[in-house]
Amino acid sequence: MTVSYTAEVATSRGLGCFWKLLFRWRGSIYKLLWPELCLYLFVYYLINIIYRTSLNDSSKSYFEKIVLYCATFSNLIPISFVLGFYVSLIIKRWWDSFSSIPWPDNMAFYVSAFIHGQDERGRLMRRTIMRYVNLAFIITLTCISPAVKKRFPTLDHLVEAGVLLANEKEVIDHLKTPHPIYWMPLIWASSICIRARKEGRVRDDFALKTLVDEIAKYRGKCGDLFNYDWISIPLVYTQVVTLAVYTYFLAALMGSQMLDPEKGYDNHHVDIYVPIFNFLQFFFYMGWLKVAEVLINPFGEDDDDFELHWIIDRDIQFSYLVVDEMHQEHPELIKDQYWD
Amino acid sequence: MTVSYTAEVATSRGLGCFWKLLFRWRGSIYKLLWPELCLYLFVYYLINIIYRTSLNDSSKSYFEKIVLYCATFSNLIPISFVLGFYVSLIIKRWWDSFSSIPWPDNMAFYVSAFIHGQDERGRLMRRTIMRYVNLAFIITLTCISPAVKKRFPTLDHLVEAGVLLANEKEVIDHLKTPHPIYWMPLIWASSICIRARKEGRVRDDFALKTLVDEIAKYRGKCGDLFNYDWISIPLVYTQVVTLAVYTYFLAALMGSQMLDPEKGYDNHHVDIYVPIFNFLQFFFYMGWLKVAEVLINPFGEDDDDFELHWIIDRDIQFSYLVVDEMHQEHPELIKDQYWD
Amino acid sequence: MTVSYTAEVATSRGLGCFWKLLFRWRGSIYKLLWPELCLYLFVYYLINIIYRTSLNDSSKSYFEKIVLYCATFSNLIPISFVLGFYVSLIIKRWWDSFSSIPWPDNMAFYVSAFIHGQDERGRLMRRTIMRYVNLAFIITLTCISPAVKKRFPTLDHLVEAGVLLANEKEVIDHLKTPHPIYWMPLIWASSICIRARKEGRVRDDFALKTLVDEIAKYRGKCGDLFNYDWISIPLVYTQVVTLAVYTYFLAALMGSQMLDPEKGYDNHHVDIYVPIFNFLQFFFYMGWLKVAEVLINPFGEDDDDFELHWIIDRDIQFSYLVVDEMHQEHPELIKDQYWD
Amino acid sequence: MTVSYTAEVATSRGLGCFWKLLFRWRGSIYKLLWPELCLYLFVYYLINIIYRTSLNDSSKSYFEKIVLYCATFSNLIPISFVLGFYVSLIIKRWWDSFSSIPWPDNMAFYVSAFIHGQDERGRLMRRTIMRYVNLAFIITLTCISPAVKKRFPTLDHLVEAGVLLANEKEVIDHLKTPHPIYWMPLIWASSICIRARKEGRVRDDFALKTLVDEIAKYRGKCGDLFNYDWISIPLVYTQVVTLAVYTYFLAALMGSQMLDPEKGYDNHHVDIYVPIFNFLQFFFYMGWLKVAEVLINPFGEDDDDFELHWIIDRDIQFSYLVVDEMHQEHPELIKDQYWD
Amino acid sequence: MTVSYTAEVATSRGLGCFWKLLFRWRGSIYKLLWPELCLYLFVYYLINIIYRTSLNDSSKSYFEKIVLYCATFSNLIPISFVLGFYVSLIIKRWWDSFSSIPWPDNMAFYVSAFIHGQDERGRLMRRTIMRYVNLAFIITLTCISPAVKKRFPTLDHLVEAGVLLANEKEVIDHLKTPHPIYWMPLIWASSICIRARKEGRVRDDFALKTLVDEIAKYRGKCGDLFNYDWISIPLVYTQVVTLAVYTYFLAALMGSQMLDPEKGYDNHHVDIYVPIFNFLQFFFYMGWLKVAEVLINPFGEDDDDFELHWIIDRDIQFSYLVVDEMHQEHPELIKDQYWD
Repeated sequence: MTVSYTAEVATSRGLGCFWKLLFRWRGSIYKLLWPELCLYLFVYYLINIIYRTSLNDSSKSYFEKIVLYCATFSNLIPISFVLGFYVSLIIKRWWDSFSSIPWPDNMAFYVSAFIHGQDERGRLMRRTIMRYVNLAFIITLTCISPAVKKRFPTLDHLVEAGVLLANEKEVIDHLKTPHPIYWMPLIWASSICIRARKEGRVRDDFALKTLVDEIAKYRGKCGDLFNYDWISIPLVYTQVVTLAVYTYFLAALMGSQMLDPEKGYDNHHVDIYVPIFNFLQFFFYMGWLKVAEVLINPFGEDDDDFELHWIIDRDIQFSYLVVDEMHQEHPELIKDQYWD
Repeated sequence: MTVSYTAEVATSRGLGCFWKLLFRWRGSIYKLLWPELCLYLFVYYLINIIYRTSLNDSSKSYFEKIVLYCATFSNLIPISFVLGFYVSLIIKRWWDSFSSIPWPDNMAFYVSAFIHGQDERGRLMRRTIMRYVNLAFIITLTCISPAVKKRFPTLDHLVEAGVLLANEKEVIDHLKTPHPIYWMPLIWASSICIRARKEGRVRDDFALKTLVDEIAKYRGKCGDLFNYDWISIPLVYTQVVTLAVYTYFLAALMGSQMLDPEKGYDNHHVDIYVPIFNFLQFFFYMGWLKVAEVLINPFGEDDDDFELHWIIDRDIQFSYLVVDEMHQEHPELIKDQYWD
Repeated sequence: MTVSYTAEVATSRGLGCFWKLLFRWRGSIYKLLWPELCLYLFVYYLINIIYRTSLNDSSKSYFEKIVLYCATFSNLIPISFVLGFYVSLIIKRWWDSFSSIPWPDNMAFYVSAFIHGQDERGRLMRRTIMRYVNLAFIITLTCISPAVKKRFPTLDHLVEAGVLLANEKEVIDHLKTPHPIYWMPLIWASSICIRARKEGRVRDDFALKTLVDEIAKYRGKCGDLFNYDWISIPLVYTQVVTLAVYTYFLAALMGSQMLDPEKGYDNHHVDIYVPIFNFLQFFFYMGWLKVAEVLINPFGEDDDDFELHWIIDRDIQFSYLVVDEMHQEHPELIKDQYWD
Repeated sequence: MTVSYTAEVATSRGLGCFWKLLFRWRGSIYKLLWPELCLYLFVYYLINIIYRTSLNDSSKSYFEKIVLYCATFSNLIPISFVLGFYVSLIIKRWWDSFSSIPWPDNMAFYVSAFIHGQDERGRLMRRTIMRYVNLAFIITLTCISPAVKKRFPTLDHLVEAGVLLANEKEVIDHLKTPHPIYWMPLIWASSICIRARKEGRVRDDFALKTLVDEIAKYRGKCGDLFNYDWISIPLVYTQVVTLAVYTYFLAALMGSQMLDPEKGYDNHHVDIYVPIFNFLQFFFYMGWLKVAEVLINPFGEDDDDFELHWIIDRDIQFSYLVVDEMHQEHPELIKDQYWD
Repeated sequence: MTVSYTAEVATSRGLGCFWKLLFRWRGSIYKLLWPELCLYLFVYYLINIIYRTSLNDSSKSYFEKIVLYCATFSNLIPISFVLGFYVSLIIKRWWDSFSSIPWPDNMAFYVSAFIHGQDERGRLMRRTIMRYVNLAFIITLTCISPAVKKRFPTLDHLVEAGVLLANEKEVIDHLKTPHPIYWMPLIWASSICIRARKEGRVRDDFALKTLVDEIAKYRGKCGDLFNYDWISIPLVYTQVVTLAVYTYFLAALMGSQMLDPEKGYDNHHVDIYVPIFNFLQFFFYMGWLKVAEVLINPFGEDDDDFELHWIIDRDIQFSYLVVDEMHQEHPELIKDQYWD
């Protein structure tokens, strides 16, 4: 469900290209922020109306003093600073998470190159290894992504989808362990490689080592995904940032009230009813915080989260294509036009 | 179309070297910013003329209050902060994108070193592998770069250019897949290597592994390029930054108006008609944002984007040169002058 | 004891998801900060009551001047800046420490793949190698983590737990060295691999090299853990940051006192008894510092520290499972449903 | 020409060690800044003298208002921010450039270890490979460094220096290509390795692979150097930063003028003739920008640029020493004093 | 001499754990700063006493204006900013330097695993290789660390210490080269490996490659240490930061003087004799700069520098232990308690 807009901003001409992005809805700040903004406006104008209509003079005066107090002291907390550092951290983790997604492409390359044999057993081995590799990834995802968990709530759903066979499910069911079992299919894949070596389908020991290395690397990436899910950014950091932003705007609800210009308070010489800059500030800081909210777990169902279903489908299709259909085939060798 | 200026700033002497860069046009801030600046100046002076000529006293007074309000509150949004973090992020991605461009140099080294045979079939194999490698890169680029897409809108254009042969195009056309097929030539290249091993042209298994490893690494880099294109920086971040800068200058259109010095407003003691610092500020912040606009997709046609056409041509020429013309040749071994 | 909350913030809907995190207790800022906050409030109101009740006019006046002095000059130290950089540094180290935790998974893969033999001696070798690998990790942890040290205060406790055998303990006891001996079991593991090669259970030299490489890599990670413990962030940096925050709030105890509004001091036009923003500021900066306190040594017993006991138990169970029970086994090869 | 001062600051005692660095001239801020500072002072005092002596009262008054205007509004541009981020970026690139300098040390190790044969042809091969490796580096440098270009303006100068032989120069001359040809000697080196393998001087295929791998790695580093030269930091970023700093000080020329204290302007209560803090600020910001100017191309002739001539000479001497004089020799094996 | 305090801050309870660090002396900010602080206080109070006692009214008035001028304008230089970026850079380099320290552990692993032979010559080879490896490290350190240079001022001291033998010293003495010779023992180590291969003590070519690779990696790390020493952070950057901090406090000596409250200057309503916040600010910024002073060369003799003597002794002891005493030995294989 990723929102790609790179093509739209490839070339900056005339008035630039970023303003075009302001009119998007999917994954946009407007879509994310409108509930908060409505709530904020509602409370703001509620207070505003009370001030304008219901208060007597002494209450008004007291109210004004509180507004001034709020306006002065709400700057004590430097939210721009903490947001800058916090969002940088989140974005780094977000991209590292993405980079930890294991792709079966190299595995498919090696399986196709090193496991020989055009007979049925050869095909079976190659296909099964790739199935196991993808299975390991999917099991990993069911543990960390609510979206994938919905698609495959139990092992039976995996059997139905054809990535797990009934006899394999039994093996998993028999194994009693409280720990995640994503590595299991990878052990099997490794065992099949060893068997293929024994049967001579893997021709040499380097090739076997290459295959086992690649499986180990793949497992490492699945493990990384787990770790990013397991070891969150320390709760206390997220709380500090969230509290800072929320209390700032709680204070701003009072502090940005427009006061009667006739009272002659500093910076209150005109009453334009809509404190446009305070609203923009809300938009700005809340939007910045939303960047963090959206990216802190990119395996969810936000507009900007990774398209895991697409990745799963593509991986499976790609794997079978490379190790089975296209196995060690290439077009006829013909001289190119620059031959001489 | 990259703008290289490193040679000009190699040595800092006298008054330094950066001021020389201010007189460049290609890729410069002036070239990028003049349309916005004109628009900004036009609107600024339109408002200015209205204030000076068309308003009566009470309107003027109200106008002045709004100007003061804008000048005071437009500082609520710390754009320097968010721009600093955002541009850092963009520049990191820009350089990472560049580092993901796969170069065929090492592949050519290995192909030349490990695929033996001076006969025609040997030459054919070496050339074809290198052609496939370059082909994979070009197909990748057609997906992510509008500039390269223009040059090779269809596979037929690749055939014309001689990097794809007609029989190979047929194979690709037969394959029905919704996913990008940039990896296909790499599979073929890998298959040719395996065939060369079978024919004894690749002498040993290490060499085969080295070749397949290098192809896998090359594919990994093509995949990275795809990912940088696919997973943009979250839209909401770009929107937050853009909105912040744009609204800041919308406010500044009012807030930087020069008021009648006789009214005695703070910081309005002199009317010099040209609020030079506000215009410089516009130049500065907008220019900083332009850095992001130019670099967010370096595969476009901005002055500062990567010179993909040059890279493609150089890669192909280099590949053939190394694996064919210069294949395993070296000058006669002669004693150097420090021999004893 | 890690606090995982990623699942709760997977998808941002409605009013977002971060506010939900504010109601957590374990690992929260409230749990960490309440003792300090109580102390701060106590002292604040003590001073406050003295000012309101016990001082005569001239003392009051002098007191007020000191309050104003504190309020003005406590901003001389930019704690937000130094905290931003310092916490970034701590978080980087925290994650690097986590990434240095060695997992026996790849070792188990390689041991299972490359050390053949279903007989008892084969099993014994595989199990012993994995036991040594885990032992090395546990010994490392006893040196750097008070939590693990409590569980295994002496080697005898390791013998009891079954990860060290009595005869091995004797060897360690005989070795007189003042340096940590975590690498010892890894030397043994390496020697067993060499013996296995001599006995033909490791079939080829690559495999032996792979095993020894992996052991060396594992040792490297244990060494990294040691180094992170040994080379702390320079004391002077931590002291500078701590002093800055503490003295800031010592000053704030005075500087945030609410003065009699009738005296007409700037920014003291209203007395609301609870200087809410100063308290929030305390919460904010102290909370930010707490992030550093919690993460500076993630091997302790804070709520947010790594769950070392869980890791140890999981590692041992996993190791035996892979190299013994599941050794080179895989489900029967059956055609998958997309076979044709 | 690097300025090393690490030894001087090894230990911080008494009043610290940094103050000692302030009295250096080579590579210092004083040496870099004095022309700008003189110019700045000259213009400052020119304006100052005009104000003090030549203006009548009304001009003076207008002048003073412009000074106040400049002093107020020159803060609109946050140069400290943009300089901080920009200089960080430059320094990162500077160190990455340095890390991309290829050292022939490992190559020499491998050549000495794996290319056997004490006869003349063996020596010739080893020496020639190392000469080619160094040649590739030097050719790379002539393209990116004006300093090295001066030393070797043409290939003939390389022939004279003995790193290129006449027959090799002919081969290069015959090759018509518009692209840089730094990789050519590396191709030759690789071909010689292959020939040595054929002649049995390289005993096994691993060794050959190791040699070719190392050559490929060396080429990669040369390519990196090229890329750092070719892909500059986007011009627009450098322009934005330069413009910001320059216009700031153009404004400061006016804004920091000392006004007649009798006029009673804010912050103008005393006239000390030398606005020391503004001059220090000039020193500070300009010095910070100079860091960028010096480091943006570290292959020039600044005091602080890399000592390329030293590196070239050391590399050549080292290479011949290792592969020829010390080839596979070591002192007699004698028991050390802790033998038992 | 590293100051480790990680154990003390493992768990944050009650009032946290950082305050405990404030009472340390070794490596503390107090120990580093007291000379500067004393000097600062002395000059401050000297000026203070002159102001209070020796000046007549007009001088006093002039003095006060200069104080106000200093107080206002000393903020022109944003030292917090530049310190933040500079210290980040220093800390990154400090940790990278530490990570470049080569450990002989892996080398010892490989030597023990791959160089067979229990006879005297086998032992001699293994010990000599490890001695050479450690020797290379020590020679490197004598070039970059004054502390190690003191311990081993000449090669003779190395001979005395037993890491260099007399006949080896002669070889080094005969070699006339102006360049550092740290790599020499590594060449010898590599030659011994090759000889061991010829004698059949190294069984296969992989093993030889592994050994030579590891020696090359070790040399790379020694080279990195050299480079960190050779290529300092550009002098101009260090000067800019130092000048900024020093001139700031020169100005603060005047600017923080407390003026007669009766004169009614802004922010000078009370005279408490001790400008506590200015002193804390001095502590803070100077302390921050001290972090840089201590870490810029971590091979010196500061309290917080690396314990090189300990590392050298441990490396030598460890090396001999692994390759000689424990060579290829492991405890008897016994079934563990979870066998079934």
